[in-house]
Amino acid sequence: MATSKFLSGDKAATQEFLDKFDTFLIDCDGVLWSGEKLFDGVREAIESLRAQGKRLVFVTNNSTKSRPDYHKKFARLSIPCTPEDVFGSAYSAAIYISRILNLPEGRRKVFVLGESGVEDELRAEGVDFIGGTDPALRRDIEPADFEAIADGSALDPEVGCVLAGLDFHVNYLKLSIAYAYLRRGAEFLATNTDSTLPLAGSFFPGAGSVGVPLVNMLGRQPLALGKPSQAMMDAVEGKFHLDRSRTCMIGDRLDTDIKFGIEGKLGGTLAVLTGVNAKADWEKEGAVAVPAYYVNGIADLRV
Amino acid sequence: MATSKFLSGDKAATQEFLDKFDTFLIDCDGVLWSGEKLFDGVREAIESLRAQGKRLVFVTNNSTKSRPDYHKKFARLSIPCTPEDVFGSAYSAAIYISRILNLPEGRRKVFVLGESGVEDELRAEGVDFIGGTDPALRRDIEPADFEAIADGSALDPEVGCVLAGLDFHVNYLKLSIAYAYLRRGAEFLATNTDSTLPLAGSFFPGAGSVGVPLVNMLGRQPLALGKPSQAMMDAVEGKFHLDRSRTCMIGDRLDTDIKFGIEGKLGGTLAVLTGVNAKADWEKEGAVAVPAYYVNGIADLRV
Repeated sequence: MATSKFLSGDKAATQEFLDKFDTFLIDCDGVLWSGEKLFDGVREAIESLRAQGKRLVFVTNNSTKSRPDYHKKFARLSIPCTPEDVFGSAYSAAIYISRILNLPEGRRKVFVLGESGVEDELRAEGVDFIGGTDPALRRDIEPADFEAIADGSALDPEVGCVLAGLDFHVNYLKLSIAYAYLRRGAEFLATNTDSTLPLAGSFFPGAGSVGVPLVNMLGRQPLALGKPSQAMMDAVEGKFHLDRSRTCMIGDRLDTDIKFGIEGKLGGTLAVLTGVNAKADWEKEGAVAVPAYYVNGIADLRV
Repeated sequence: MATSKFLSGDKAATQEFLDKFDTFLIDCDGVLWSGEKLFDGVREAIESLRAQGKRLVFVTNNSTKSRPDYHKKFARLSIPCTPEDVFGSAYSAAIYISRILNLPEGRRKVFVLGESGVEDELRAEGVDFIGGTDPALRRDIEPADFEAIADGSALDPEVGCVLAGLDFHVNYLKLSIAYAYLRRGAEFLATNTDSTLPLAGSFFPGAGSVGVPLVNMLGRQPLALGKPSQAMMDAVEGKFHLDRSRTCMIGDRLDTDIKFGIEGKLGGTLAVLTGVNAKADWEKEGAVAVPAYYVNGIADLRV
């Protein structure tokens, strides 16, 4: 079985680890912060990594924020960063739809289950969309809706794709409409499929759990554009011209971050214990992915 | 492979089929009606079955209605029936909680994801509950909610069970609260796990799809009290003193109705083609269940 090297408190081992890499792909939620609470020592660790000449790319599955939103959050928490340093699943999905999916003429609209971050990234890529934060859909389903969804009069015939992300305003009406589009043959994409969202020191429904009713109804999975999807890795590599062997993925989740790094054949993966997974999760039989290294928190990478 | 006998239009075969049984367990949605639309010939078929001395029990997974609600619906559609002729998954769940589950003292409240039908049946069985149709939960989640759910101040310490049913008012707030109770060790029950609800000639999210975000977050299934759960069959048998060999299950879904009848070792199962499943669904490799008989619609049982 693969084993993981523990670095916290061992300065020599930490420096040896750092010397192996030029670029660090760093997850945000559960690694840098939980909600609006920055973890202790994060600012200093980021500074220390940059002082050693490392390139940092923040790779996040949280689709509620666009790159400019993330930039604002970094600024609010006093971590220097440009919008270009952030690669989110909403951006990844927008790029995939606009540059790769090639929806047929007349069926190019996207029905969005998600927040403004997804909308902003779609807009920036020139993708037409409906749903999302539209206040007209933030209401209870009414008897007339069942009829209008069933007979198609409530549906836009130009929708050729359903994109499911984290939607704090998910409801029965939106799920019914999304499912109706999927039954009519719309492509099924997801920004990401994280089951939970770490927040306020606890866990809340993640994008994967918001969209899973559609999976359950359809009996098939969406194409997910967030970690661990290698579509996202390819996009990151294309944009940042990575040398994968000199790149390390840092994250808190085995099933997204660590798997993403391993399947992407990166030079290394490092788990932090400030988020979803604990050491026992990768030491057990049938663990979804085993990190090469781990630390208590990213603060321990400061040397 | 098991084969299914087609009865529509064959009066002799239909009479031979009817003679094998004293009791018919009949599913409602997709068999008798779709929403408020009664299928053609249903009234006459029910009348004809009763004229032959058959006992009819309406066994439904739709948890939005209580037995009295169903009684009203039958009356509205001019089908004679008493509340006692109906056995719904909300009733099944209420009985299970009050008579079998035996929640510990001080943890006997149920958090309900569902509509008034579940609430009515719980109330009739003397089970204390919160959630459900409470208007205080029919709103968007706010930043303060994340904190209050995470630190437990928004939670009722007496909740020892989460019951997930069909909730047309499901939202992120309710799912977050339900998940918080489950993380604290509450029992996880579902009225039923139908993935879709046939309505208005189309399909909408069923109870199973409303509750599946919790399954996705927890990584385990609830105990379901509706079809095909044999807990429901045992309860039906106990109440109606069935001779299983002389009982036939009639339904439109293979994964609930037909499976329910086969696993319950009933004398027969009959599929109708007015609902979710088509003939191709049981003729394909790996079909979830194969009915012994089938008809185009229940109207064809009239002789």
